[in-house]
This record gives sequence, structure tokens and C-alpha cells, in this order.
Amino acid sequence: MTDAVRRHDPAVRGFASDNNAGVHPEVLAALALANGGHQMAYGWDEYTAHLHDVFARHFGDRAAAYPVFNGTGANVVALQALLPRWGAVIAAESAHITVDECGAPEKLAGIKIHTVATPDGKLTPELVDRQAYGWGDQHRAQPSAVSIAQSTELGTVYTADEIRAICEHAHARGMLVHVDGSRLANAAASLGVGLREITTDAGVDVLSFGGTKHGLLLGECVVVLNPDAVRDLVYLRKMSMQLASKMRFVSVQFEALLGGDLWLRGARHANAMAARLAAAVGGIDGVRLVRPVQANAVFAILPRPVTERLLARQRFYLWDERTGEVRWMCAFDTTEDDVDAFAALIADEMRRG
Amino acid sequence: MTDAVRRHDPAVRGFASDNNAGVHPEVLAALALANGGHQMAYGWDEYTAHLHDVFARHFGDRAAAYPVFNGTGANVVALQALLPRWGAVIAAESAHITVDECGAPEKLAGIKIHTVATPDGKLTPELVDRQAYGWGDQHRAQPSAVSIAQSTELGTVYTADEIRAICEHAHARGMLVHVDGSRLANAAASLGVGLREITTDAGVDVLSFGGTKHGLLLGECVVVLNPDAVRDLVYLRKMSMQLASKMRFVSVQFEALLGGDLWLRGARHANAMAARLAAAVGGIDGVRLVRPVQANAVFAILPRPVTERLLARQRFYLWDERTGEVRWMCAFDTTEDDVDAFAALIADEMRRG
Amino acid sequence: MTDAVRRHDPAVRGFASDNNAGVHPEVLAALALANGGHQMAYGWDEYTAHLHDVFARHFGDRAAAYPVFNGTGANVVALQALLPRWGAVIAAESAHITVDECGAPEKLAGIKIHTVATPDGKLTPELVDRQAYGWGDQHRAQPSAVSIAQSTELGTVYTADEIRAICEHAHARGMLVHVDGSRLANAAASLGVGLREITTDAGVDVLSFGGTKHGLLLGECVVVLNPDAVRDLVYLRKMSMQLASKMRFVSVQFEALLGGDLWLRGARHANAMAARLAAAVGGIDGVRLVRPVQANAVFAILPRPVTERLLARQRFYLWDERTGEVRWMCAFDTTEDDVDAFAALIADEMRRG
Amino acid sequence: MTDAVRRHDPAVRGFASDNNAGVHPEVLAALALANGGHQMAYGWDEYTAHLHDVFARHFGDRAAAYPVFNGTGANVVALQALLPRWGAVIAAESAHITVDECGAPEKLAGIKIHTVATPDGKLTPELVDRQAYGWGDQHRAQPSAVSIAQSTELGTVYTADEIRAICEHAHARGMLVHVDGSRLANAAASLGVGLREITTDAGVDVLSFGGTKHGLLLGECVVVLNPDAVRDLVYLRKMSMQLASKMRFVSVQFEALLGGDLWLRGARHANAMAARLAAAVGGIDGVRLVRPVQANAVFAILPRPVTERLLARQRFYLWDERTGEVRWMCAFDTTEDDVDAFAALIADEMRRG
Repeated sequence: MTDAVRRHDPAVRGFASDNNAGVHPEVLAALALANGGHQMAYGWDEYTAHLHDVFARHFGDRAAAYPVFNGTGANVVALQALLPRWGAVIAAESAHITVDECGAPEKLAGIKIHTVATPDGKLTPELVDRQAYGWGDQHRAQPSAVSIAQSTELGTVYTADEIRAICEHAHARGMLVHVDGSRLANAAASLGVGLREITTDAGVDVLSFGGTKHGLLLGECVVVLNPDAVRDLVYLRKMSMQLASKMRFVSVQFEALLGGDLWLRGARHANAMAARLAAAVGGIDGVRLVRPVQANAVFAILPRPVTERLLARQRFYLWDERTGEVRWMCAFDTTEDDVDAFAALIADEMRRG
Repeated sequence: MTDAVRRHDPAVRGFASDNNAGVHPEVLAALALANGGHQMAYGWDEYTAHLHDVFARHFGDRAAAYPVFNGTGANVVALQALLPRWGAVIAAESAHITVDECGAPEKLAGIKIHTVATPDGKLTPELVDRQAYGWGDQHRAQPSAVSIAQSTELGTVYTADEIRAICEHAHARGMLVHVDGSRLANAAASLGVGLREITTDAGVDVLSFGGTKHGLLLGECVVVLNPDAVRDLVYLRKMSMQLASKMRFVSVQFEALLGGDLWLRGARHANAMAARLAAAVGGIDGVRLVRPVQANAVFAILPRPVTERLLARQRFYLWDERTGEVRWMCAFDTTEDDVDAFAALIADEMRRG
Repeated sequence: MTDAVRRHDPAVRGFASDNNAGVHPEVLAALALANGGHQMAYGWDEYTAHLHDVFARHFGDRAAAYPVFNGTGANVVALQALLPRWGAVIAAESAHITVDECGAPEKLAGIKIHTVATPDGKLTPELVDRQAYGWGDQHRAQPSAVSIAQSTELGTVYTADEIRAICEHAHARGMLVHVDGSRLANAAASLGVGLREITTDAGVDVLSFGGTKHGLLLGECVVVLNPDAVRDLVYLRKMSMQLASKMRFVSVQFEALLGGDLWLRGARHANAMAARLAAAVGGIDGVRLVRPVQANAVFAILPRPVTERLLARQRFYLWDERTGEVRWMCAFDTTEDDVDAFAALIADEMRRG
Repeated sequence: MTDAVRRHDPAVRGFASDNNAGVHPEVLAALALANGGHQMAYGWDEYTAHLHDVFARHFGDRAAAYPVFNGTGANVVALQALLPRWGAVIAAESAHITVDECGAPEKLAGIKIHTVATPDGKLTPELVDRQAYGWGDQHRAQPSAVSIAQSTELGTVYTADEIRAICEHAHARGMLVHVDGSRLANAAASLGVGLREITTDAGVDVLSFGGTKHGLLLGECVVVLNPDAVRDLVYLRKMSMQLASKMRFVSVQFEALLGGDLWLRGARHANAMAARLAAAVGGIDGVRLVRPVQANAVFAILPRPVTERLLARQRFYLWDERTGEVRWMCAFDTTEDDVDAFAALIADEMRRG
């Protein structure tokens, strides 16, 4: 049936990243469903035509969704849309856009990022103000937008009120607001609110909405929530190399994710698994949980020799070489058994010292 | 099983683009096969590890394949790899990189394109020389590479000798050679040669190898054929927003395409359908085939009213607004019945005048 | 008085470029006049404050002048101001911005240039239309501006009516118009009109106004004629590395040039010298003047051995390696004796054959 | 003699910036000397030909100087030369390249800057290591160079040993070193060493050497000290819009500055004036000098009402809006009387409270 060969054990899962999970069966089924025959390429297909309804349900009727390939692509397209050529974006020092995108915002799109140190990956109006100044000074890349991640790279979550406060603060100073929502679903599930409360209703202008970490084969969306803020996004998407020719296969996955409650089931489950892991290891002597577990990530510090032995037996990341902090990430397909076995392994290795 | 809904008729096909076709069943099977469990993201999975073998079979042992999302991405990554910051690439005036990528090479990667008018979309050493000068002149963006498309945007095909002549000419002048091979399979099938004869063996340095038009859901590869010419492509890929997190699903599709002869079967068939269409309409009075049909595209000029009536009944592109030239493109899934019915439709509309 | 030493013969002049001339004595006097004491840097000095009056006299009260360092800088700042990120500019194939700026527009500012072949370096509405299409097509870098040079790189001059026709044509299609006016003074002198007739009054939106070729030590101005078309140019200038700290010394030179009629005296003289040269060599058997002599440049074809011998005795440029066309350029300081001696030299070498 | 008019009082000087000073008489004399006749443009003149000797005397025989227009231009050209497309530079959070260039490095040249907080504007090997990691990680813009300012933006000076330590540290990690030397002369004068000891001999690869702040009308040089580190800088300069056509007038100013000891006389004097000012105000009750006065800048904190009254009577900068820190800068033309009068003014305003 195919010349490809299975090369991996589908029963093995780890705690390295929610990107390591595969495709949710409901998403795979959607792909098959959109297959067959010809559909106009580059977004003129029936599935993309339906996307507005899919996203309007969650983000309001003014929302417009533009499918792209990956999170870096979504962020760079969104930021180009929000910034004039001379603009800069204010972001946390730990933000994915400055730390983990190989300089894509600067190198490909000429975006200046004014960074701010934060205690927990979250900006506040006060922290924004560390960089929000210098308008009118021709020597300063003009602060024109604020970008926050929800949930953050450190597993923390903004409340709707916190986001609203940032949006009001930014807007009052002529700045727009971008949310890097590769894990927006986890944040909403954690807060017990809809996607809209923490985005459109809070005043967010443009959102990078993540699908890949939630069971898509691949796919993110730039979601314009405030159409007055941006224009002509289709050109930015194409020139940023983010326009899929067979877009129907990206769009139909978002229908599978957002048409029902797949996004919520998956995110809730991943969060629950992280909470279960935190509870299990929190009681182990010598393991220190160093950040609030608010979404699907657990950050801990444990003795370096233990970390090294654990890494030989299970996949996860040593997050900070200097402090020895590790990151354990749960996904939509992490099982209770996975968690319990890993917690037992940690306990076991801790006993060995 | 999924909240997505089928929204199109899988029995309908057109002649607008090979990008309008869907996913080949063997490719869809490969996706399912690579699913399940966790695999390291960003290219550290078992399927990507196997890619070297997949490509070495066709392009030689020194070939290194880097999966990316789309053709524009492949081209822009490849050209960045070949050019110094001050470099320029010489390409045909009709090249996709200058005509159809919304300025991505210039806008995102700062690439200057020196264009040359061609009669048929093909460069020659003589045509290259129209722009190959000015080395050492600080005012001129230094010609540093030549980029050709195989098959071309006009449905023509370079022979292995023609490519070799260009490579030798370019190399003798210190320039490298890139091939935009989104339809390389069609060219090889047309010539009756392997992929290697028209790339590695002809002296090509870097190739954009297309998968999407040949039945992949999505995926192209930057294939480095001359490892002495480029370095550190992984950073260019990431910073160009072309790094897939769940790369296993891109890689396994290439295994399905290239592991056996799927690439050849599909390309041969698409070419044959174009030849069948050309033969059928070539005999219709008033239809003028304006370019050699060497791959899977047919270009024709017919009366404007006929074109307009045809466009109301079948999907294809009015290629040149001024001349009235149209493009009919066949895909791996175009059937003989599709071709015959379309030819009959054309004949019918021509009779109406 | 200075540790520098005179290293050249100030009595020697050539025909290579108006950039080879030095500083006009009136300009040098202006520099001394602006010297002494402290003046706020970066444009907050008294001389720059006065620039508005200097330029308003010639370009109207809405004109705003932004001094920059050189012509490439002026062009790149102006085009960035006129184009959205996804925009492209239409220009002649022979335009300085595409031929002679080492790719600065593409490489530094991500500007796509759609080029058009022209017979004489001049665009027309019809020629503009060769590239003015594809609005709304996401694959095409959107044509957003037209750029013309006045006088052109080939020594030809647009009439006010010709410029008006291009502006109306462009504006009707939503495009703005830029004039590369490094030799605008020569064009105005040639036409016998003011600077305003061929810019503001003709509908031009932004102008690169040249000073260097007219006796400035250094300095060009981006002149915004249509303030509705651009905004916040000061940031573009600074981020384009074109903001002079001691700007008073750039601004005062423009006062010297434009405050009286120095610009006109110099340009008229340079044009007259070109006309004198053309008249003198036009009668020499075997010398073919190949372009209308409308400004300060003479283009001619003469036998290659003659050219080579001439180049050994006088400075000028072999303009086109293939055709053997040469360029002879006159400057504000070219003398009648210079011209007559050079014409005699040419006649002499032609006799040698 | 000129249509320009003197618009300022040449007897008035302030403490805002060494950029506010004018042209040193010896430099103005050099300009006149290089004037007259024609000299080949774009660097092919006799004065630029002599530049190698001028710079070799101070930086060694391998040094190559490339004149550019301004400091931002010099820095951006130098960094492009040192960094691969995927590279990043490590710099202090207070560095001019990240704070004061309107994002030019990011926006025009795609340069990612990894910033480090410093106590005094100076990096150390330990501080470099805060950002010097992640080589081989495709998600991280690869640290490829370190950039330091000498003297720093905070008026502090690196010793030769401190620079050598940074260079050795950087080189051992495969990184190159850039010095932003817009005030290198002040640093050398402060240390009592030659320019070479703190650059070439300390292992610096590329230098931005400043002329403007030392009495030039305009002009900086990119000085390549390690020719193995960079190549083809002329193209980078042109494409970065930093190539002067009448380069003789930039080059001859450097001959005036560096041919004798003008650079040293001016820098020593400016430093001495800063020391005099620091001594005079250091004893005033309520005025706190907050940084070591090692070059020509004095940083102080005084009561806000006093600052505001002082600003109404004398030009200087409120450096930090939050802390109330002010900067007083001395130039080559600051007089003892200027300093004494300003100190008296400060004392007077402090008494008023």
C-alpha cells in the first residue's frame, strides 16, 4: 500500500515536548475526509472557506483566520502585520520569539524586540513600561506592540483580567497586542474559560493560534481579532513563505480541532497529566517544583546526577544548564500510566541519590 | 470519528494546477504509519534519520535532504545558502522565484535577482551571460548563482546536457547552480532518465525538490548535492520559518514518494495526460498550442470568448491576460476520461465560436 | 595648519562623472560659515530648521526636506516610505536603483523592483503597464509605486507633461510616484522650467533631490512633496543609517545651492558643456552619438581601438562592454577649454583610426 | 560669496554632546586642500589611496580602512561582515547598537543582538557567557561575535588587558570581536596608550573608528584589523548605503586627524575638561557623580527641580528619566571657561534647591 516503513514504536511516549506527540485520530480522519478530487489551491478551497465559521464560534464574528505552517511563521507574520517598518515589539526575555526562533523575527522580518526580564515569563503593565518609552525619539526603534505568550514558555497562565490590563495599557500608549497562543487551549482549559474571554474580549489584536501541539499534523493560524489593526495579511503570509498550496488539509484539521471540543478535551487532559505529575513528584524529597503548574508543563530542580541518569531512561529537557532546572511536558496523549511510571522512576533515581 | 465534515465532491477534478490534487493514497497510508507514540520533534525522529538513504538512492551518497514546508520556502532557503550577503542570482524573467513568490526572496532574504528574458523559460550559457558580469564592481550586486526551473514554468524541460552546460559555465565564473525542482519528477519522466542524471551528475549544487505536486499532503526538500558549496543549512531553515516540529510526517511522505517508484508513476502519468490533451486539442481548428508539451502542462491560445465560456465550466488559468494564452495542467490523478471530456468540451465551445 | 597634504593636481578634470568634481567655492564658504560653536546634532540645528524655507521656495509650502548622505540612501529611504512591506516598485531596467546600488533596495530594505525594458531610459504609462497588474493576487509583489529618474541614467529628460501623465496613470491605479532626481537640476535647466513644474506640480509624491553632483561636498535630500503619502520618515532615515549627526553642515550646503541660483548656474553650464561636446564630436566622421543629449551626458559609439587609446589619455566610462558605447559626462566645473581639448583629442585619435 | 547665511552664534557651546561641536580648523583646511579638479569617485582618489598608510601607522600594516558616513553605518557594515546570516552578536544592554540606532542592525541587516545587563556598560568574559551558549542548537541565533564600545556609552574605559581577555575568550569559542570606537581616541588618551594597544594588539577583529566626534565634519571608518575574519567589505559598504561618491573629502579628514596628533590633542583636551567639570561639581553638596569619569563624559544625579532649571539655561541630556541621571559631555572645543561657568551655574542652582 506504501513503500514507507514503520520505524518507531507507537507505544513509546516521553515528557520532552507536546510537539513529540503525533496526530490525533480525529484529525487524521479529517485529513482523509478532505482528500480526493481537486480543490483550488492556496486557500480557495471549501474547507478554508468554512474556516471563518469555525473561528467565529470561538473568537467572535470579526475574527479572521489565516492558516500558516508553524508557530514561528505565525508569530513573524503577525508581528509584521502589527508593526510599521520602524516599529519594535516589547516581549519577555524568555519569549519564544526572542529565544527560540533562531532570530527569525529580526533576520527575516527586521523586527526589533525590546526585552524585559520577568519573574515567571509574564509581562505586566509595569514590566511593559520598562521598555515602553521613547516615542518620537528618532534614535529609538519605536515601541509599537506588546507580545505575550499564553500559556507562557514557563508554564504559567495569564488570567483574562491580566491580559485586559496589558491590552488597555498598550492601547492607551498607541501600541497593539499580540498573543503567541501555541498553547492557548491549555490556558483556556486551565482557567475554565472560553478562548474568547482571554483574547477578543480582553482586547487582543492579533493571535497566533496553535494547532500542532494539540494533535494536528501541522498547522497554526494567524487570527486577526481587530481588523482595524492590520490589513492585507495575505501578502505578508505569502512573502513569509507560509502559504500552503493544498491548504484544505491545514484548514480541515482546524475544523476537527475547533468544530467540536477536541481542543478542550486534549488540553484539559494534558493539563491534568501535568498536575498529576506535579502532585506525584512534589512529595519526593529533594525534588523542588520551581514554577506554578498552571498548564501542561512541570519545571523542577533535582540533583544533577539524578537528572543525568533520568535522561538516559526518559526523554525530557534540561531547561537551564546553569541552575539544573528541568522541564517535563505533557501532551494530549500522555497517559496516567505514563505519568505514574515516570514519577516512580524519578522517585527511584532520587533514592539512589 | 471527527467533527470535520466533507465539503467537496471528490469526483471532481480540473486542469488549473497540480497543486489542486489531493494526497496520493500511498502517501496517506504512510502518514498513518508514522503516527502514534512520541518521536523527537524538529528532525530528530526515525523517519528523518532515514531520509539520507531515501535521497542517496536517487541523488548520490553526498546528497543531504532538508525537509521544508513549501516551494517558496525551499527556494529561499536554498538561495540564502548559496549567496553571500552581497550576492545576486541570475534567473529567467518567467522564474517562479521572481514572478510568483510575492517578493519573498527580496523581502525576507534580501536576495537580488538579475532576470533575463527567454523564449521558452529556459536559460542557456549565452542567456546567463546577459547578466553574468560586473564581478569586482562594488556598485553591482555580485552574480553568485544561477537558478533554473526543471521543468520550467512554461512546461519545457532541460536535457541533462543543457543543465551540464549551464553548470560548467556558471562554475567557471565562480557561480553556483540552483534548480527549482518542484516538477523535477515530471522532467525526469519526460526525458526517461533518473533524477540523478539531471542534477548531481550534471553539476547542480543545490536542489529544491518538490513533493507537493506529486501527491504529498505538503512537503519539499532542500537537497544539498554539493556539500562544499553550503554550510549550516539547519539555521537558515529555522530562521526562514521552514522547520516543521513534527517532521516525521513530512519525511515519511518522501519515503513513500521516493522509496519505490511512486514519483515516477505519478509523473509519467501526468505527462501522458498532458500529451493526450495536446494531441486531442491540437487537431481542433483555431486552437494553437504555443509551447512544446514536454512535461505536464499544455499552453494554448484560443479565442477569448471561447476561453471565457470554458472558464465558466472548467477550472484552468488564463496565463497571459495580454495574449490570451491559457494553461492546462495535468496531475497524477488526472484520468483519461477527464482529458477526453475536456477536449470534447473545448471542441464543442470552439464550434460555437 | 593641517597634517593633511595635497595629493592631486586641481587643474586636471575629466569626463568620467559629475561625481568626480569637487566642492563649489560657494558651498565651501557655506561650510565655514556654519562652523564654530555648538549646534544641536541630528537635525535640531538652525540650518536644518531653515531648510523648509529653502525647499518651499522651489517645491511649494507642503514640501518637507530630509537631508541624507547619498543618492542610494535617499532612494532607499524614499522607497521604504512609499511601499508597504509587500509592495513593489516599477522602474526602468536601466534605473540606478536596480543596476547601480549593489542591491541595496532589495538587500537592506526588502524592496522588490519590477523592471521594464525601455528604449531611452524613460518610462511611459504604456511601459508602466507591462508590470502594473496583479493587484489582489497574493503571489505577486504588489505594484505600489513607480520610480523614474530625472534626468535619466541615459542622459534623457522627461517633460513636465510626460511626468504628469505617469503620475496620473500611477495614481489612478493606486500607485505612488518617486523621482530619483540626482540630476533634477540638469533636467530643469534643460527644459527651462523651475524645479516645481517637473515635480510637485506634475504630481510627484516623493523626490530624491541630488546635491552632490552639483557641487556639494556630500548631501542629498528626501523631499516629501505629498505629505499624505508618507509618514514618520525620520525613523526610516535613522534606521537606514542616513542620519547625519552634524547635520548643519549638510543643510547649509543646500542653502548655498538653492538659496540663490547656484543650482541653475551649475546645471546650465554642465548641460552647455555637454551640448558643446556633442556638437564638436558630432561632426567627426565615425563618431556616432547614440542618444539625445538633453542634459549633461553624451553617449557615443566609436571604434574600439580609438576608445582604448582615448581611455589611456582621458577619464571616461566604457558604458556598454558589448556595444562599445561610451559615456562622457560634464560637470559644473567643466570648462570650454576642457571640452575643446577633448574633442580635439577624439578627432585626433579618430584620424589615427 | 555664498547665498547661505550664518544663523548661529559660534561662541555658544554646551554639554549635550561631542556631536554638537563643529569642524576643527585643521580639518576644514584639509577639505580645502583636497578640493579642486576632478578625482575619481567612490574611493579611487589619491586621498583614499593614502588612507592605508594613515591607518597602518596606528593599527599596523594589516589594517584596512573603509570610510563610511556615520557611526551606525560603520557598526552595521562591520557586524554584517563578521556574522553569517544566522549569526548573533553579544553586546551590553546599554550598547549604542541596540539602544540608539532605531533598530538599524535588526531592520536593515537582520542582525540579532543578544544583550547582557552590565553594571557600567562594560562586558567581561563572565558577562559574555550569559549569552555565549547554544552553538549547534538550530533554535538559537548562533552567537558569532562580541561587540564592545570603547569608551562605553557610560563614559567608562576598557584597559588593554580587559579587551584582550574578552578577545581571547571570544576567539576560544569561535566568536569574533568588534569594537564600536566612536570615542576610541578618548579611551586611548585616557589610558595613555596608543590606538594599537587597545585594538590590534589586544586581538580585536574589526573596529568602527570614529572621526565625527573628534572634529570631522562627518566620517567614520570600518577598520579591518584581522583580514582573515572578513572579506569583500566593499560590497557590504555599498549595499549598506555607506559609499561616499566624493570620498576624497572623507579620507582627507582622517589624514588631518591621524596624520599628526590632532586626534590625541582633541581627545586629551575633552577628557581633561570632563575631569575638570567632575572635580568642580563633585564638591557641590547634593550633586552625586554616579559613574567613574574615565573619558569625556560626566554622569551625575541631582535634584529634579535643579535639573529642570539648568536645562532652561544650558544644553545637556537627562539620561535616565526614572533615576534623574544626567549626562554632561565635553568636546575637543570645550573651554576651561565653559566648564567653570557651567560648574558655577550648577552650584548656583543647587543653592536655590
